[in-house]
Amino acid sequence: MKTIAIKQTFQTIRHNKFFELFVIFIIIFSALVVGVKTYSISPVMLQVISILDWLITIFFLIEICIRFISEENKKDFFKNGWNIFDTLVVTISLIPIENSEMAVVGRLIRIFRVLRMISIIPDLRILLTSLMKAMPQLGYIVLMLFIIFYIYAAVGSIFFEAINPTLWGNISISMLTLFRIMTFEGWADIMYESMAVYPLSWMYYLSFIFLTTFAFLNMVIGIVVNVLDEEHRAARLKKEQQTHPLTLEDLDRKIERLMEIIETKK
Amino acid sequence: MKTIAIKQTFQTIRHNKFFELFVIFIIIFSALVVGVKTYSISPVMLQVISILDWLITIFFLIEICIRFISEENKKDFFKNGWNIFDTLVVTISLIPIENSEMAVVGRLIRIFRVLRMISIIPDLRILLTSLMKAMPQLGYIVLMLFIIFYIYAAVGSIFFEAINPTLWGNISISMLTLFRIMTFEGWADIMYESMAVYPLSWMYYLSFIFLTTFAFLNMVIGIVVNVLDEEHRAARLKKEQQTHPLTLEDLDRKIERLMEIIETKK
Amino acid sequence: MKTIAIKQTFQTIRHNKFFELFVIFIIIFSALVVGVKTYSISPVMLQVISILDWLITIFFLIEICIRFISEENKKDFFKNGWNIFDTLVVTISLIPIENSEMAVVGRLIRIFRVLRMISIIPDLRILLTSLMKAMPQLGYIVLMLFIIFYIYAAVGSIFFEAINPTLWGNISISMLTLFRIMTFEGWADIMYESMAVYPLSWMYYLSFIFLTTFAFLNMVIGIVVNVLDEEHRAARLKKEQQTHPLTLEDLDRKIERLMEIIETKK
Amino acid sequence: MKTIAIKQTFQTIRHNKFFELFVIFIIIFSALVVGVKTYSISPVMLQVISILDWLITIFFLIEICIRFISEENKKDFFKNGWNIFDTLVVTISLIPIENSEMAVVGRLIRIFRVLRMISIIPDLRILLTSLMKAMPQLGYIVLMLFIIFYIYAAVGSIFFEAINPTLWGNISISMLTLFRIMTFEGWADIMYESMAVYPLSWMYYLSFIFLTTFAFLNMVIGIVVNVLDEEHRAARLKKEQQTHPLTLEDLDRKIERLMEIIETKK
Repeated sequence: MKTIAIKQTFQTIRHNKFFELFVIFIIIFSALVVGVKTYSISPVMLQVISILDWLITIFFLIEICIRFISEENKKDFFKNGWNIFDTLVVTISLIPIENSEMAVVGRLIRIFRVLRMISIIPDLRILLTSLMKAMPQLGYIVLMLFIIFYIYAAVGSIFFEAINPTLWGNISISMLTLFRIMTFEGWADIMYESMAVYPLSWMYYLSFIFLTTFAFLNMVIGIVVNVLDEEHRAARLKKEQQTHPLTLEDLDRKIERLMEIIETKK
Repeated sequence: MKTIAIKQTFQTIRHNKFFELFVIFIIIFSALVVGVKTYSISPVMLQVISILDWLITIFFLIEICIRFISEENKKDFFKNGWNIFDTLVVTISLIPIENSEMAVVGRLIRIFRVLRMISIIPDLRILLTSLMKAMPQLGYIVLMLFIIFYIYAAVGSIFFEAINPTLWGNISISMLTLFRIMTFEGWADIMYESMAVYPLSWMYYLSFIFLTTFAFLNMVIGIVVNVLDEEHRAARLKKEQQTHPLTLEDLDRKIERLMEIIETKK
Repeated sequence: MKTIAIKQTFQTIRHNKFFELFVIFIIIFSALVVGVKTYSISPVMLQVISILDWLITIFFLIEICIRFISEENKKDFFKNGWNIFDTLVVTISLIPIENSEMAVVGRLIRIFRVLRMISIIPDLRILLTSLMKAMPQLGYIVLMLFIIFYIYAAVGSIFFEAINPTLWGNISISMLTLFRIMTFEGWADIMYESMAVYPLSWMYYLSFIFLTTFAFLNMVIGIVVNVLDEEHRAARLKKEQQTHPLTLEDLDRKIERLMEIIETKK
Repeated sequence: MKTIAIKQTFQTIRHNKFFELFVIFIIIFSALVVGVKTYSISPVMLQVISILDWLITIFFLIEICIRFISEENKKDFFKNGWNIFDTLVVTISLIPIENSEMAVVGRLIRIFRVLRMISIIPDLRILLTSLMKAMPQLGYIVLMLFIIFYIYAAVGSIFFEAINPTLWGNISISMLTLFRIMTFEGWADIMYESMAVYPLSWMYYLSFIFLTTFAFLNMVIGIVVNVLDEEHRAARLKKEQQTHPLTLEDLDRKIERLMEIIETKK
């Protein structure tokens, strides 16, 4: 009986507007603490930050406990990927790390706490979900892009390795160089260098730029348009369901009844 | 009685087409004066410009007075943000500034007078309003973009500070460096520098470029498509209201009446 | 009587498919001649090209004469902008230019002959026309973009002139520098240079990049979407006119007649 | 009789899901072998790879034979472009190449085997086909882009050849330089160099950037929007055919029948 009372109290706390805002505030504050640590700060300040950090960790621990206890079905809690993420981030930041090697991991975990923003604000979660839903539709264009990269990288490392091994040493370095060319970062110098040996190599660069720019833009515009379309369709469907507008089917039924009336009148 | 007569005269002046064109001409002229001042000019010319500048300021003062007096309800005048902007710009440019420190402020105010173009030309005001209306819809994607920047900047300043403190010294410098990387400006050299220490750091750069390019394009295309959709919908609605086309509801009503007629005929 | 016969013969020639293809071939050939001249060529070859050039000019003269004579109403000929362009290009290339100063003009005129391709191929002319039609719709966004450039250039030349007069010397140089920044070409170095004096000047650059990138993309996407919409609407309208589909109005008229029949039956 | 049995067995193999997956696996494996060869590897490893390479070639030969034999009509096999491509790639990689000059060709052929991925995975083939279908629609904009490039390159090589023959030596070098300018790669330095001689040459660069950026974006967005539109239309048509929804025509027919009933009742 008592546990149910506690559960209900915790549920009330959890869905309290002020509590939610306070959690968001603490996440932003923890992000600021992470930011401040990147500046060169006095030892006193470092001490203060260290204490604040512990307070934040403890608060996050309490917040997760509240959410876990208030959950009706304990199993459902870990079915939600965001809950697992939250629990992992908080538990790892509880481990006291002295070793300098591991200290980096501790700092990284503290940075990932900023991602909790997405798990807390529903609109951000929806945005991420809708973006992820759009991804698989364009999986094949990504595969196509990768095939283009792979073939050009293989060709590049065969022909241009002797010219500049730093850029074309092997297939993975070549792919990095090609990504750089795709962003137009200093691509002209790379081209001029290889044109000194192979005067026709401009065809290699130009065809690559055309193919990848086109495929990349296609991918991005495709995803955006799909997501927007999906949203519009959902909004229209929702509106139609709310207003129950007349359809041709309704008129059809009316005319049918009219026929029946006339028939029966005979 | 007299004040009403003055008010009406001023209203006539204010809505006069030639007066409006003259105001636009004076704004363009004041913009040109601002432009000329950036060239190295002879003291005589400087004198002429100084006088022109005063004439423009006085004209703007008169123009605002006309608009203020012609306003029916004086309180409404300051409810319009553009009126407040105009009044501020004109009154500040009235203050005689001798001090060289403050002279810069005076020059800036004179530049901002060019913005009055937007407050005068209705189409520019509408364009700005429609762009601003589209903004809040995409607030969450901007927040997402900021979270991405913040996390990458924190990670960057932990790992790469020792490599290049000029680029990764603290979280704000890192965010500026990341913005530079997002525009592809010399990003390859920054990456090669950190790959010399951490050979896998290319994953950091590539994932950042993918995420931000995608989110940024998504944001821009989203806003543009939304604004265009809104415009089309408004245009269609306006057209429909003008033509009062037949709807299914109208036909439905007709069939209902037909039924009634047949029923009553019995 | 004879002139009419000539006119008809010329009209037949003008609309002959082979004649049209031959004109396109000559234009492409004249473009190639222009291209060949940019290489360092032997004096003999130069002589040959010079002769070819005269032959092309004479052919173009004849072609225009045919078009002019075959025109029903001579006045209409010069109402078409492309005809004026063609005539000007051909007549100017007839003037024998010996002076080296003027020789450049002669060469330019020969290059502009390539533009005749657009006046000859109807699809290219339609493409250009549809692009030009889309322009005025977005005139205000171009004006907005110009206002942004002008204000930033004025601010830039006030604050940064002392730092780097080559980039920020006066308002026109500043506008060129800003255009360069808009294309992300070496903008980071320009920013770092001014941040050494004004540490907050990154706000100037970032806000400029956001505003102009957004406005520019808006402009381009807007024009493209408008043109495509226009095309689709035209195609749909054409299809609807061909098929004469049933409208709600047709059904309405039918039901009205039904009512009348029932009414009169009483 | 026996050949038909073989044909059927081969058809079963060919359409077997595991066989298809195995073919894809072998293609990926052959791509990895190509990639590994770009690293500096030990002679033993090179020997292993050489053997693997032969095994892959033999497998591909068998796979094509299966497909050829299982084909109902042998002539249809070579009507499919992908089949020709597959056969060519496999037969050429069968030729033993010892000569170092030709070895490069052999390596290239092995790289092109990765393209077989597209011929095997139907979705990739559909993607490529739909992209290619969109191309001809925009052929005229490509022609326009080429005319712009040609004219600017001719003008550039006339005026700027004396300034920098490496960039503006002849019309083909100029076109390459212009392509570089179109990608914004170091264009500002090229412009400053020519502005030192012709102060107004910024007009040349700015107008070129505006025209090509606009035309290029137009082309890409146009293709993408067309492809997406086509897909949506196809999806909608398919859905409509499946559900057979009521049309105005159906209602019209009903009302007609109603009229007849009333008429005959008289």
